[in-house]
Amino acid sequence: MIKYPGGKEYKAPKTKVTLSHKSSLANRGMNLEDDINQSNDYYNEIGRCLIYKRPTPINIVKVDYSKGAHIVDAYFEKQSTTDYNGIYRGKYVDFEAKNTKSKTSLPLANIHKHQIKHLANVIKQGGLAFFIVEFQYYNQCFLIDAQFIINRYESKEKKSISYEEALKHGIEIKSGFRPRLLYLDAVDQMFFN
Amino acid sequence: MIKYPGGKEYKAPKTKVTLSHKSSLANRGMNLEDDINQSNDYYNEIGRCLIYKRPTPINIVKVDYSKGAHIVDAYFEKQSTTDYNGIYRGKYVDFEAKNTKSKTSLPLANIHKHQIKHLANVIKQGGLAFFIVEFQYYNQCFLIDAQFIINRYESKEKKSISYEEALKHGIEIKSGFRPRLLYLDAVDQMFFN
Repeated sequence: MIKYPGGKEYKAPKTKVTLSHKSSLANRGMNLEDDINQSNDYYNEIGRCLIYKRPTPINIVKVDYSKGAHIVDAYFEKQSTTDYNGIYRGKYVDFEAKNTKSKTSLPLANIHKHQIKHLANVIKQGGLAFFIVEFQYYNQCFLIDAQFIINRYESKEKKSISYEEALKHGIEIKSGFRPRLLYLDAVDQMFFN
Repeated sequence: MIKYPGGKEYKAPKTKVTLSHKSSLANRGMNLEDDINQSNDYYNEIGRCLIYKRPTPINIVKVDYSKGAHIVDAYFEKQSTTDYNGIYRGKYVDFEAKNTKSKTSLPLANIHKHQIKHLANVIKQGGLAFFIVEFQYYNQCFLIDAQFIINRYESKEKKSISYEEALKHGIEIKSGFRPRLLYLDAVDQMFFN
């Protein structure tokens, strides 16, 4: 949920708010994006990294200049890269967050081809690329190496990552108060150990 | 100039199109942002780097869902970071583009405090931070180390970078056809020599 001046609230259409099966962690936010943004705010503030969400790209059709630059006609555009990037431990970091309500798997259908291509390019350039995947049913988040998902995406077999695979190949991200998601600890474990 | 589906064109209000004093280079674009975007498209395509413009942040006040997600009320927000970031030669890269019509200097008044803070943080994290500064009168672009501008910004003296300082402390960016601005050559010279 993004708060705007004047107390208005705008809910980005891409993120569906759903109460998870087990919402036992009182301090967890309403959705994955909130949790990551709050975690980045905290991590950036203490100087552990510098990671930001890319703004949602908007296609602007009409601007009314009569009262300042006021956008009166525009629509959402699909992000051609990923949601987050920045620097951590001197390395370029790039990742995408995805959640699933399914008990069994994350379908890869909602990962765009250009995002896969982008993350493959990040790896080629020597950056760290991963996904943060939330299985809402289990109230669990995993860090999954982008290469694992790229391989699956490009294979002719099944087009999903099962919960068992997330458990086996991913690293579970611990929750806390500040940050809500201790995802950099999982990054340490995956890329720096 | 951003092209939208249906042939509509939208000119971002922050970039003022002005014909430069010497517009001798036939293939130069209409403005600095265009030139950098086209250069990044080219560099990304040949795999020399992976650098993108961050989308302009928009504050959305009202969305009409009756005909898809259609934004009917929104306004521009100031970028809290910089315009461009990505990865080059394995390093995190972050920069801002500024142009000036002045013959004598780039006033620092149009660089925001949070951008200075952001670039200082990039340097702390071990990233490469710089400005691409265009002196329109001379039709010249310079790569200037962010640290140089941060120092000036924080000093109590004059609040500008003179053309002579750009010549002395900056690296002139050569123009071409593809890419229009060979700015990575200047990055090589400044950070990798």
